[in-house]
Amino acid sequence: MLANNKPISIALLSGGLDSATATAMALEAGHNVIGISFDYGQRHKRELEAAIELAAHLNLLGHEIINVNLAKWGGSSLTDLQQSVPTQGIIKGKIPNTYVPGRNTVFIAIGLSLAEAKGANQIVLGINAMDYSGYPDCRPDYLKSFQALANLASKAGREGNAPKLWAPLIHLNKVEIIQEALRLNIPIDKTWSCYNGLEKPCGLCDSCRIRNEALEKAGRSDLSTREEI
Amino acid sequence: MLANNKPISIALLSGGLDSATATAMALEAGHNVIGISFDYGQRHKRELEAAIELAAHLNLLGHEIINVNLAKWGGSSLTDLQQSVPTQGIIKGKIPNTYVPGRNTVFIAIGLSLAEAKGANQIVLGINAMDYSGYPDCRPDYLKSFQALANLASKAGREGNAPKLWAPLIHLNKVEIIQEALRLNIPIDKTWSCYNGLEKPCGLCDSCRIRNEALEKAGRSDLSTREEI
Repeated sequence: MLANNKPISIALLSGGLDSATATAMALEAGHNVIGISFDYGQRHKRELEAAIELAAHLNLLGHEIINVNLAKWGGSSLTDLQQSVPTQGIIKGKIPNTYVPGRNTVFIAIGLSLAEAKGANQIVLGINAMDYSGYPDCRPDYLKSFQALANLASKAGREGNAPKLWAPLIHLNKVEIIQEALRLNIPIDKTWSCYNGLEKPCGLCDSCRIRNEALEKAGRSDLSTREEI
Repeated sequence: MLANNKPISIALLSGGLDSATATAMALEAGHNVIGISFDYGQRHKRELEAAIELAAHLNLLGHEIINVNLAKWGGSSLTDLQQSVPTQGIIKGKIPNTYVPGRNTVFIAIGLSLAEAKGANQIVLGINAMDYSGYPDCRPDYLKSFQALANLASKAGREGNAPKLWAPLIHLNKVEIIQEALRLNIPIDKTWSCYNGLEKPCGLCDSCRIRNEALEKAGRSDLSTREEI
C-alpha cells in the first residue's frame, strides 16, 4: 500500500489493445498500477514502443521493461525469424506457430516476482479466451492453475495474501474488448497488435485479423489497418 | 529425441552442489542434458563460473545462460546489496531475507520454455525440502502445483506429454545429497553455494552453514570451508 492508500497492481503491458484495456480497468477500479513489459527477442519488438507510450498515457506509477531472451531457443515464428508468421487465418483446434513456448508462464512468473517485491495484491492480465489464437496459456483453467501455484510460491501466500491474477477480459469477445477500450478512452491507434514488426501493421496475421474484424464489427473500421494492406 | 535416441532433459544448474548432483543423476539415468543457468542480478554471480565449469565437467549437451534481472526490484538480500545476508543461522518457521521473490517460479518457467522448444521431456531440479532455508518455492506441494500448471501451459501437455519436473533430491537431507555427489564424482570443490560472492565462501551464511555441517557429518570436513572463516 502506498501513502495514498490505494492497492497496488502489476499490469503485464504488451503494447497491444487487450493489456492496455485491462490496465485501464485496474486504474478505474482504484488501483495504483505498475506496468511491466518484456523484451523477449520478439519479431515485433516495436510493440514495446507502444507499451511505453501507453504507460505514459495511462499515467502509471511505474513501468519496468525486462529482458528475457526466449529467442535464444526460438520454437515460434515470433522468436525465430526463419519461421514465417501464418497469414491464412486461424485453423480451429490447431495451435499456430506464433505460440511461444512457455511465454505467458515466464511473463506471469516475473510479474509475480515484481508483485511480491512491491507488495502488490493483484497481477493484471489482458489474456482472453474468446477471440484468440488457441494458445494453451490463455485459457481459464491455465489461469486457475497459476493462481494455485502463486498461492504456494509466494511468501504472502502463507497468510492467504498471494497476489491475485486478474484477467478481466477472459470471457469477453474482441468486439466487447474494443467497446471497453473505447469507453476507457484507450488510444487504440497507439496500441500495437501486429505480429510482424514492420512499419505498419500487416493486416494479415492472426492478431491483425482478429483486431480488424472486431473493429469493423464495432463500427470503428476507421481504426482498422485493413485498408493499409 | 536426438539421433542417439536418448531422451532430453533440461537441468537448472545454479553452480551449487544440489543442482550439479541432480544433473549427474539425470545423466546416469541415460538422458541427454542441456543445462540452464540464470544471471538474475544475484550477489553471488560468481556461482555462474562454477555452473560453466560443472557443465563442462559433466559434458552436457549444451548450456544456456539467461539474463533476467530480478535485482531491478530486489526484495531480497541476494538481489539488493543494501540488505545484509543473515549469519545467525536458520530461524525455524521464518523465511529469511535471502528468499528471492518468485525466483524458482521464474526459473522453472524459463526452463519450461526451453524444454518445449527442445522437445525435452524432463526438467531437472536440485530443489530439496529437508535441509534448506524454508523457502516456499522449495516444497513438494509447490512442485506438484507447478507440474499441474505445466500440463496446462504447454503444447505437449494437450497430449499428456508435458515435460515432467524431476526433483530427485527433494526428500534427501544434505548428508545424503553429499553422499550422492561423491558417488557420482561431482567435483564438490568446484561447486559454489555461498550467498556472498566474495573470493572465498563466507562460511557463515545459511548456504555455507548447511553445506559445511553436512560435509562434516559425511566425514568430508576436508571439503568444508569452515576453517577459512
